[in-house]
Amino acid sequence: MRLSKKISGIKPSPIRKFFKYTEAAKKAGKKVYFLNIGQPDVRTPPAFIEAIANDGRETVEYAPSAGIPSMITAVQDYYRRYGMEYAYEDIVVTCGGSEALRFIIDCVCDDGDEVIVPEPFYTNYDAFVRASGGVIVPLTTTPENGYRYADRDAIARLVGPRTKAMLLTNPGNPTGVVLTRGEMETIGQAARDFGLFVISDEVYREFVYDGNAVSSFGQLGDIEDRTVIVDSVSKRFSACGARVGVALSKNRDLIGGMMKLAQSRLCAPTFDQIGSAALYRLGPEYFDGIRAEFERRRDAAYEELRKIDGIVCVKPPGAFYITAKLPVDDAEDFLIWLLENFDDAGETVMFTPAEGFYATPGLGRSEIRIAYVLNERDLRRAIELIRLALAAWNKR
Amino acid sequence: MRLSKKISGIKPSPIRKFFKYTEAAKKAGKKVYFLNIGQPDVRTPPAFIEAIANDGRETVEYAPSAGIPSMITAVQDYYRRYGMEYAYEDIVVTCGGSEALRFIIDCVCDDGDEVIVPEPFYTNYDAFVRASGGVIVPLTTTPENGYRYADRDAIARLVGPRTKAMLLTNPGNPTGVVLTRGEMETIGQAARDFGLFVISDEVYREFVYDGNAVSSFGQLGDIEDRTVIVDSVSKRFSACGARVGVALSKNRDLIGGMMKLAQSRLCAPTFDQIGSAALYRLGPEYFDGIRAEFERRRDAAYEELRKIDGIVCVKPPGAFYITAKLPVDDAEDFLIWLLENFDDAGETVMFTPAEGFYATPGLGRSEIRIAYVLNERDLRRAIELIRLALAAWNKR
Repeated sequence: MRLSKKISGIKPSPIRKFFKYTEAAKKAGKKVYFLNIGQPDVRTPPAFIEAIANDGRETVEYAPSAGIPSMITAVQDYYRRYGMEYAYEDIVVTCGGSEALRFIIDCVCDDGDEVIVPEPFYTNYDAFVRASGGVIVPLTTTPENGYRYADRDAIARLVGPRTKAMLLTNPGNPTGVVLTRGEMETIGQAARDFGLFVISDEVYREFVYDGNAVSSFGQLGDIEDRTVIVDSVSKRFSACGARVGVALSKNRDLIGGMMKLAQSRLCAPTFDQIGSAALYRLGPEYFDGIRAEFERRRDAAYEELRKIDGIVCVKPPGAFYITAKLPVDDAEDFLIWLLENFDDAGETVMFTPAEGFYATPGLGRSEIRIAYVLNERDLRRAIELIRLALAAWNKR
Repeated sequence: MRLSKKISGIKPSPIRKFFKYTEAAKKAGKKVYFLNIGQPDVRTPPAFIEAIANDGRETVEYAPSAGIPSMITAVQDYYRRYGMEYAYEDIVVTCGGSEALRFIIDCVCDDGDEVIVPEPFYTNYDAFVRASGGVIVPLTTTPENGYRYADRDAIARLVGPRTKAMLLTNPGNPTGVVLTRGEMETIGQAARDFGLFVISDEVYREFVYDGNAVSSFGQLGDIEDRTVIVDSVSKRFSACGARVGVALSKNRDLIGGMMKLAQSRLCAPTFDQIGSAALYRLGPEYFDGIRAEFERRRDAAYEELRKIDGIVCVKPPGAFYITAKLPVDDAEDFLIWLLENFDDAGETVMFTPAEGFYATPGLGRSEIRIAYVLNERDLRRAIELIRLALAAWNKR
């Protein structure tokens, strides 16, 4: 009575092992600034709960397996604003972007199949791919080159007979990288040449700064037969607990496969879909406000990080994360010391060591990810604490 | 760029192919009685939406991956009523019972592993097992013996080196079979002897009639190391669209494996968990009312079915389904004719042909499943329509 090999091979969440240290720091009376969370501090637009409260149905019945019609049409209209036309049948509403990813990878991977993923990557991709029996083949990037990955030769070197897809996050988590049009075309051309699906996780879509336009693989018409977009209300509308996501593709085989899985689990939550349809109907002015706030935070975080001697980081063009290389051998050791042995005026800080975002053993040990989900003042103080702690760490 | 073999092997929902016929019947002006739906017509207790509306949080944030504390403790208290003690850490809240089943089967099956399932069975089990790369090995039952399956010799004949688990629904869908204590012990003994997990889907738990007590594998202490219970608010509280389920097990390896999957998908929906916690807090009087109503319907449905010449069916002791063998060669042909060519005073009826509930080719072709989710008057009329249609069918 042993567990399956594929589940045994999944590493437990790398975040969880630090929980006991932050709990101990809080218990010791320290104030901890949390830079490790992917949960924005932004209020969920009231339209979400209002739509649910006003719905009035007496029985919370199943939704259609592909999603409720008002949600699907709201998603269609939202994509149209960015020049992307998706048919009603191109869209499957899922229990969060997470379920969309699992459905897609299950449709693409049999035991031993491979998915190319730029590293560092969102750690849960590893669980999704392993749960399908597949394997992640990492496309390694470096802090020195700003974690950019649209390199045809590097992709070509990784492609083998079992390679099925390339999976990427754009804008990137944990790196904040946003692909340029030229980079998307390079990846698209490689996908065509090597017969790969392009799985583009775009849940941070509107979080692009410096006046740059939204960048989506849905805008590349010449690879629409192989592209699938993953989307979610979680980050965009600060509705992480709604668990409503979407998969969009013009590849009807893929949609057909996902619909088999969607029907088997019956539906995504009915009320959350009703609320999410109202969110997708919010106008572009909603994103303008959010984007301006996060751009200020990104600038503040970057400014504070640049004050740290020996840091390697590039100002990220999107999402709400910065990954940086610190002048330490092991960021995990530094973090544990920081929580256990350091404080400045009773305050300390928590970030995410980046080693868990790499598939290649040994990489990322000096790197950390910070999520700039705090207000500007707290954010500056939190990064100041990292700087002060590094000075103290080097004097031990 | 082909889909994975495991997803290609999943049959599309057998229910969907009849959709066009019911739509055409409605378009032709016929009234269609729907006996094919697993969605009770009962109102969701208002406690669900009240708890959500009164919650007051401004940001719909992630819930803990194992579930919100108020939900887990409400589930613990509910199980205690039936004499079952589960620790907080024995419980994982999922996106519906469906996700609980996928998690469990992913934890149990690698490519080519086998799960014994009494047939006829809930069709989506096939999708869950295939999506994990596994195979269902059917334990065949017959209408003549009331679809009972606790047969040690029959189980022993099916066990092979790749057999990992036995998966069953108790009370049963589509059969309505409720296991006796002795039958549960037979299955438990077989699971011990052959080293199998017992995956007991008990989402219809309170739907047991004739004064019989609730029957749960959680009550068998001597197999608690290998038992996992699947539960859901969908049927019990008529909250199918909430997508809140639970997996409970004292096998910590299994819980550990499920938690890896739970963490990878972040959480079950936050608001639906808040509403579902309130549902689990409803007292036993809630179930008494529901049970009495469904027992009346069961009796009415059975009484009407017995009026059909040549029918084979046993009065089912639980759930809200009756599976019966009709005096026809092919229930699908009969159903299509019934929707296309039959009416009585402008009315016709829809049921589920049972062939899709069998894994063994050719079995179940004469059988149908009816869900008694209509009020008694409509239910009697709907079954009368089957009887009248059969008479007309035989005179063609």
